[in-house]
Amino acid sequence: MVYQDPKLLLFSLSSNRELAERVSQITGVRLGKVTSKQFADGEIYVDIEQSVRDHDVYIIQSTNFPVNDHLWELLIMIDACKRASAHTVNIVIPYFGYARQDRTANPREPITAKLVANMLVKAGINRILTLDLHAVQVQGFFDVPADNLFTVPLFADYYKENGLGGNDTVIVAPKNSGIKRARALAEHLGSGLAIVDYNGEDERNRENGYLIGSVEGKKTIVIDDILTTGATFTNAAAVLTKNNAAEIYVCASHGLFLPGAAERLNASPIKEVLVTDSVDSINQKPDNVKFITCSSLLADAIIRIHEGRPVSPLFDYDKVQD
Amino acid sequence: MVYQDPKLLLFSLSSNRELAERVSQITGVRLGKVTSKQFADGEIYVDIEQSVRDHDVYIIQSTNFPVNDHLWELLIMIDACKRASAHTVNIVIPYFGYARQDRTANPREPITAKLVANMLVKAGINRILTLDLHAVQVQGFFDVPADNLFTVPLFADYYKENGLGGNDTVIVAPKNSGIKRARALAEHLGSGLAIVDYNGEDERNRENGYLIGSVEGKKTIVIDDILTTGATFTNAAAVLTKNNAAEIYVCASHGLFLPGAAERLNASPIKEVLVTDSVDSINQKPDNVKFITCSSLLADAIIRIHEGRPVSPLFDYDKVQD
Amino acid sequence: MVYQDPKLLLFSLSSNRELAERVSQITGVRLGKVTSKQFADGEIYVDIEQSVRDHDVYIIQSTNFPVNDHLWELLIMIDACKRASAHTVNIVIPYFGYARQDRTANPREPITAKLVANMLVKAGINRILTLDLHAVQVQGFFDVPADNLFTVPLFADYYKENGLGGNDTVIVAPKNSGIKRARALAEHLGSGLAIVDYNGEDERNRENGYLIGSVEGKKTIVIDDILTTGATFTNAAAVLTKNNAAEIYVCASHGLFLPGAAERLNASPIKEVLVTDSVDSINQKPDNVKFITCSSLLADAIIRIHEGRPVSPLFDYDKVQD
Amino acid sequence: MVYQDPKLLLFSLSSNRELAERVSQITGVRLGKVTSKQFADGEIYVDIEQSVRDHDVYIIQSTNFPVNDHLWELLIMIDACKRASAHTVNIVIPYFGYARQDRTANPREPITAKLVANMLVKAGINRILTLDLHAVQVQGFFDVPADNLFTVPLFADYYKENGLGGNDTVIVAPKNSGIKRARALAEHLGSGLAIVDYNGEDERNRENGYLIGSVEGKKTIVIDDILTTGATFTNAAAVLTKNNAAEIYVCASHGLFLPGAAERLNASPIKEVLVTDSVDSINQKPDNVKFITCSSLLADAIIRIHEGRPVSPLFDYDKVQD
Amino acid sequence: MVYQDPKLLLFSLSSNRELAERVSQITGVRLGKVTSKQFADGEIYVDIEQSVRDHDVYIIQSTNFPVNDHLWELLIMIDACKRASAHTVNIVIPYFGYARQDRTANPREPITAKLVANMLVKAGINRILTLDLHAVQVQGFFDVPADNLFTVPLFADYYKENGLGGNDTVIVAPKNSGIKRARALAEHLGSGLAIVDYNGEDERNRENGYLIGSVEGKKTIVIDDILTTGATFTNAAAVLTKNNAAEIYVCASHGLFLPGAAERLNASPIKEVLVTDSVDSINQKPDNVKFITCSSLLADAIIRIHEGRPVSPLFDYDKVQD
Amino acid sequence: MVYQDPKLLLFSLSSNRELAERVSQITGVRLGKVTSKQFADGEIYVDIEQSVRDHDVYIIQSTNFPVNDHLWELLIMIDACKRASAHTVNIVIPYFGYARQDRTANPREPITAKLVANMLVKAGINRILTLDLHAVQVQGFFDVPADNLFTVPLFADYYKENGLGGNDTVIVAPKNSGIKRARALAEHLGSGLAIVDYNGEDERNRENGYLIGSVEGKKTIVIDDILTTGATFTNAAAVLTKNNAAEIYVCASHGLFLPGAAERLNASPIKEVLVTDSVDSINQKPDNVKFITCSSLLADAIIRIHEGRPVSPLFDYDKVQD
Repeated sequence: MVYQDPKLLLFSLSSNRELAERVSQITGVRLGKVTSKQFADGEIYVDIEQSVRDHDVYIIQSTNFPVNDHLWELLIMIDACKRASAHTVNIVIPYFGYARQDRTANPREPITAKLVANMLVKAGINRILTLDLHAVQVQGFFDVPADNLFTVPLFADYYKENGLGGNDTVIVAPKNSGIKRARALAEHLGSGLAIVDYNGEDERNRENGYLIGSVEGKKTIVIDDILTTGATFTNAAAVLTKNNAAEIYVCASHGLFLPGAAERLNASPIKEVLVTDSVDSINQKPDNVKFITCSSLLADAIIRIHEGRPVSPLFDYDKVQD
Repeated sequence: MVYQDPKLLLFSLSSNRELAERVSQITGVRLGKVTSKQFADGEIYVDIEQSVRDHDVYIIQSTNFPVNDHLWELLIMIDACKRASAHTVNIVIPYFGYARQDRTANPREPITAKLVANMLVKAGINRILTLDLHAVQVQGFFDVPADNLFTVPLFADYYKENGLGGNDTVIVAPKNSGIKRARALAEHLGSGLAIVDYNGEDERNRENGYLIGSVEGKKTIVIDDILTTGATFTNAAAVLTKNNAAEIYVCASHGLFLPGAAERLNASPIKEVLVTDSVDSINQKPDNVKFITCSSLLADAIIRIHEGRPVSPLFDYDKVQD
Repeated sequence: MVYQDPKLLLFSLSSNRELAERVSQITGVRLGKVTSKQFADGEIYVDIEQSVRDHDVYIIQSTNFPVNDHLWELLIMIDACKRASAHTVNIVIPYFGYARQDRTANPREPITAKLVANMLVKAGINRILTLDLHAVQVQGFFDVPADNLFTVPLFADYYKENGLGGNDTVIVAPKNSGIKRARALAEHLGSGLAIVDYNGEDERNRENGYLIGSVEGKKTIVIDDILTTGATFTNAAAVLTKNNAAEIYVCASHGLFLPGAAERLNASPIKEVLVTDSVDSINQKPDNVKFITCSSLLADAIIRIHEGRPVSPLFDYDKVQD
Repeated sequence: MVYQDPKLLLFSLSSNRELAERVSQITGVRLGKVTSKQFADGEIYVDIEQSVRDHDVYIIQSTNFPVNDHLWELLIMIDACKRASAHTVNIVIPYFGYARQDRTANPREPITAKLVANMLVKAGINRILTLDLHAVQVQGFFDVPADNLFTVPLFADYYKENGLGGNDTVIVAPKNSGIKRARALAEHLGSGLAIVDYNGEDERNRENGYLIGSVEGKKTIVIDDILTTGATFTNAAAVLTKNNAAEIYVCASHGLFLPGAAERLNASPIKEVLVTDSVDSINQKPDNVKFITCSSLLADAIIRIHEGRPVSPLFDYDKVQD
Repeated sequence: MVYQDPKLLLFSLSSNRELAERVSQITGVRLGKVTSKQFADGEIYVDIEQSVRDHDVYIIQSTNFPVNDHLWELLIMIDACKRASAHTVNIVIPYFGYARQDRTANPREPITAKLVANMLVKAGINRILTLDLHAVQVQGFFDVPADNLFTVPLFADYYKENGLGGNDTVIVAPKNSGIKRARALAEHLGSGLAIVDYNGEDERNRENGYLIGSVEGKKTIVIDDILTTGATFTNAAAVLTKNNAAEIYVCASHGLFLPGAAERLNASPIKEVLVTDSVDSINQKPDNVKFITCSSLLADAIIRIHEGRPVSPLFDYDKVQD
Repeated sequence: MVYQDPKLLLFSLSSNRELAERVSQITGVRLGKVTSKQFADGEIYVDIEQSVRDHDVYIIQSTNFPVNDHLWELLIMIDACKRASAHTVNIVIPYFGYARQDRTANPREPITAKLVANMLVKAGINRILTLDLHAVQVQGFFDVPADNLFTVPLFADYYKENGLGGNDTVIVAPKNSGIKRARALAEHLGSGLAIVDYNGEDERNRENGYLIGSVEGKKTIVIDDILTTGATFTNAAAVLTKNNAAEIYVCASHGLFLPGAAERLNASPIKEVLVTDSVDSINQKPDNVKFITCSSLLADAIIRIHEGRPVSPLFDYDKVQD
């Protein structure tokens, strides 16, 4: 099936070509011809091999490792599109790097997430589409339209199909800042909620975890947005085990799987690690990893945006003002 | 005591003149002469009655009710200062209205907190100082330097002096989004943590509250950032009572006390309601209200900023990246 | 009759819904679904209940009393439209509040009219349509296209139909700054011109009015742009009476009718007070008030703008460079 | 006398070097070394022959004929100063060309005065000082501080010294748009007011002038802001003669004296033509021309601005909001 | 032949109406109605006599002598188009004045080419089309799309038709900075390359020219971008004669022919002076001048831009990164 | 020796700490405390360990390999400094990466050098200092003050001390675009000039090099700005050998020494490779490499800028307008 409107162009940069191809197949929009090379001095050169003049360009690029290269590749592509007179430049960033540096928690800290937003807007984007941002307030860092899609419904569907949910199951926030995401999944699955908390001002001291709530004899699903070293999950799993959880599942929107994560997760009592395909990590994955794709979510949003139809049916989470 | 450097000017607009006067006394900087009148057609006219040319102007204005008038009074004052060639215009907003509208949770929602930030920056501010913002990410809505002071240390000192804290006491987050603030107070007081959560997607349905964690026989302190109708606190108090809390104290950085709040709080088992003087509410207060002043915190920050000394010693909270 | 192009959306905010409905009927464009509520803390929340993605949005809002609330309601609506990806956001401000604060007449005065313009542009408008601005130079405060419609032809038609005009009639400027508007009406009606002036630097001292020109035995029409307290008109009427005017009519584009205006006008020898419906004032009106509608003028301009046809046929005034 | 602070630099461009030298003498600030040449292809090259790094630069340039060259000379000088790291760039424009194109009176008209303001601000000015702008609203075209000095007090002092003023004298606005300036002079001299008006929509048809008010047997002073062809004055003089004025004096802030003006004025019954030295016109002047200098007014303002003292004592006009 | 799409409007300002008419004929787009007058005080007034609302406007204006007037005429036209709601404003500047002031070679120099770019962008252009810019980096001075067309292929075609090229011919750069342009022509004609260089730091000392390379017995073509006084060419011709060149031809993209150029060129051994019609110089031309038109190149680019087709087939030069 | 003014802070990021330390020693300004770490996911975190409030910060960072990391480290540092209220942020980029992508030579090319400039300015720099930019026009890509220092005088001094220069020596541009740099060195050394040129449109085809000018029996110095693979130099050396040059020296401002460069240069007849220490390359260098330091040039410029003294005495090249 080929998408009708030739004004819509879809480009993939180099961070996650597989995901882009899935989006291409679902939308029926062929991936545009673009070559990107990196010279021996590290400089990136982007060569768009077809006209973009007066077209609506959508660029898919996750900004995971190597985040700085991926960001410059994206900025250069945006610059090239603007100078080549694209009608609009829309970027799709399934995994948004630097998202956690979203405030000045310590003196003289940068707010790198805002810096990234400023750079993208100055380079010339007309719109941004993201997936499960670390903090939803980052939307407000942009003065161009910004849509943020949620992965919780994807996870909920998967777990329902696999027999999890209801009173048997408890959803667990693995640290005190993640409770809203856990609450959303609990709603979807009709399950209860618990939180793993850590004493001491510094959360990096993971020795002293304890549970708020109860998981006694329950299946548990620990949910987080980003899986980096896996330690957040394995520490939470240890607390859950101590509190007699029956089974432990974990899920995260973005699976970075930094070096050491696979070993750490393999050595834990976690039964399954569920992530989306937002990140194409080259590192080792744990044996029990499962991927669900976010491509249809992205594809649907891109088509809705291009056709001027509301993206709102794709929102299904975080509806309450606190 | 009079502050030495005549380049520092301190102005109070009309929202909270008492707080401004306390700041004036502590800093030794006389409040500048400014008259603000509102005509019968609602238009505000600001008349600065002394030269501000080449001075560093600090303007104190909370943006509580009537928020729109207070914001325009502030914007007009900023415009007048810029056109009158102030060297810098620094605004001190102890209570930052519209802060909760910080993301698009529903389709076609504005991000009014970002809009307010954009308006202030466009009007010409050089810097902003806030107190316990609803979400710290709002700092990133500004591209001018933004310092956010925390009230948790003030509350902690007060409660320690009054014999609360330690193992006898449990700090309670009255809803799932407030847990980081509760965690900070718990650290300061060496106490445990519990959370009041509500089933159902819509938190406004407050019938179905339940407790995560335990408060059995403990003194409890419920902490939130903004006290509006008081319902969040009284609902939490009901849950705590059901869970056999021994005593219930509540505190909030900003006491708006909307109509009905006093009655609601008076009718609850809450022993004391503690707030700062960030808001000068004209509404009725509950009988057991206690005020602590944030004026020395603000005064210290203003002088440090003016003298180019680091504000960082005033930060004592939220140090961990999540 | 329904307007054909569904890309054109017309919204009314809360200042003057009646006028918006008249514009809706004339254009055949149904008013869009938007709800605006103001919470007990004064904050405004705007909820657009239909998609605006890729549509051309026209928002009708006069910024009369309470001007600050009306301005924030408008700014928030603009923000919501931009973030919801409206194609263009066009605002129609029949009465433009703060228009008289258009220069720094005294030291350290703000130029609030420019501040308002800057806020609207920064919030994201693409175009503005106004009606008889206090000073036409305010158009230049905007760097987006700004069309200013004139009410003098409406007034002229009305008076001609009612037998006024020609040599029997003298048009009177009620203060020295309003002479250009009076001159325009005089041209339309083929009548002479007179001016009421006041001695003393401060025009607010209205005791010492005198007439420049003659109205002896003539019908007179006093014309101004804004009717606030009515004092400008009643003072002028006193001067005209002293100079033996036969009859006194007054007209103003914008009838604010501040408290006391009705009584003041009722007690004067003025035979009829004519205003447009640009302002929906809740205050008492004088007994002899007459309204003419500016809705067809606005409706025509909106359709012309949307269809890319020139608005210029709607201009009929102020053609001469001075 | 030499001005103490070496951080203040004063430069004259080529439009009015004499005036700049007077300002230099009064302030005690030597004119900075700058050479400006125009090549055979019309391009201007500005060579600043001394360091401006970290200095406060004041540039004096009237933008009379050839206005486009004078504007580019000024813009290029501003650019050079910014790139050479001047601390601030302040421009002094005694005569502001294009000021009359301040609104779109006809369809598709530019607002060239706003365009000029935008160009100056974009080039990098920090502040502007003007003298008797055609419309004071043009101040609001700038978002940098803009001070506008008034010439009426200079004229009033001159006429008082020469025995004009009081009941013997009537101040005349030569067209309906100039009445506020005439009113200000009348206040200063304690005299009455009259207006020359013209029938017909097009003011350029000067046949049909008539007087509003009375000048019978009085000395009259006709005041305008800009003297171009002289026709406004000679037409007014004809009307005044017809109305039996005893003597006719005219004054204007800016004497452009376009070709033909001198002959026209010489042939009229005008006794004296008074202008300031804001413009250095190369054209012929009428025989009875008198110049008063605005240099001390400018000098005082420059020093006050540089020293951070209020400019407000220099304002003495236009204090009333209309 | 009339161009189909009425949304495309083509306007000529006053610098080169003949070239604009050629472009009009080739494109089939009638020149739009615009009148531009310059008053006695030097101010320019632009009157667009047809609606431009929602149209794509292309404005043709070379900025040769009088460059400052031509630039302001262009800026004012842009302002008028933006305020009259043109959909896009595209400017075509065949000869871009001030292009040589593109860097700060000496202390405190302006970068006037960047200043011009900033002014045009701030005035509101959406795109710029140029012809053989002095330095291609000036494209980067614009953040709007900028296309730069090359004249070398036009010259190459002309010389091939006239029997020049191949081994018999040597292409000569008349100074060391022009070698890339000479190299491009050499490639097109399959000829060799030589350079005229001057000893001494100051190239203006033209006594000491010498040849790098050999022209012994060859036909030579000297190529430059701008012909101003002709001295660069006549000096080069002297060096070539001394080195026994057989014949000397010269070509330049832009023929300004400043006063004296014609005489100087006539007195030299140059056989033919070839330039395009990018500049409509009123000065005397040398007897052996030949014009080739760049109108079809411009016409083709305008149509391609308007239709969203790539302009790249028109590029044929400067492809190598150095 | 310690520099007096404590307001001047000097920071080194991670690209070239050795050069920064040399600058620190010469200026007497201790390097500020800053830690920069890169996490496993590639994200960079910059921690400024001292107050920068109200200080003038100078940041030294070359943007060689890995260019994208070095750029983000710089951007993040700038953001941190601005948010921490530095008075000014000045960046020193001895080697400016992406400088060669300074125009759109092919269709749809980005202008990455302009993009980098835009990003730096948007992040908040107040000024930039560079060393021998690839094209001087890149200065104009910045609207903040930009000083570009030249290395030619350093090279000239070195060669004079080592007995090169005068009639015995010929300076060679290794490709047609480098002739201005070669001409400058030739002037300094009183030597002649020659150019290595290549037939064919594509300079990358290095087979067909030939010499313009003569080097018969002469010592030759080939000069370029950037040494990447070394091929430009070795190809030129081959041409020079064929033309019987006596000795071959090469110099470049920036020695990147990409992998393979050392071997290639070692295998060539080049006697010595001279570069500055602007780049701290980790790759192998040729055996005959010589470094001269640019640190005193940078140190002098930094102090001059900070003290408001002219940088112009440091310019000594490229003075002629072409």
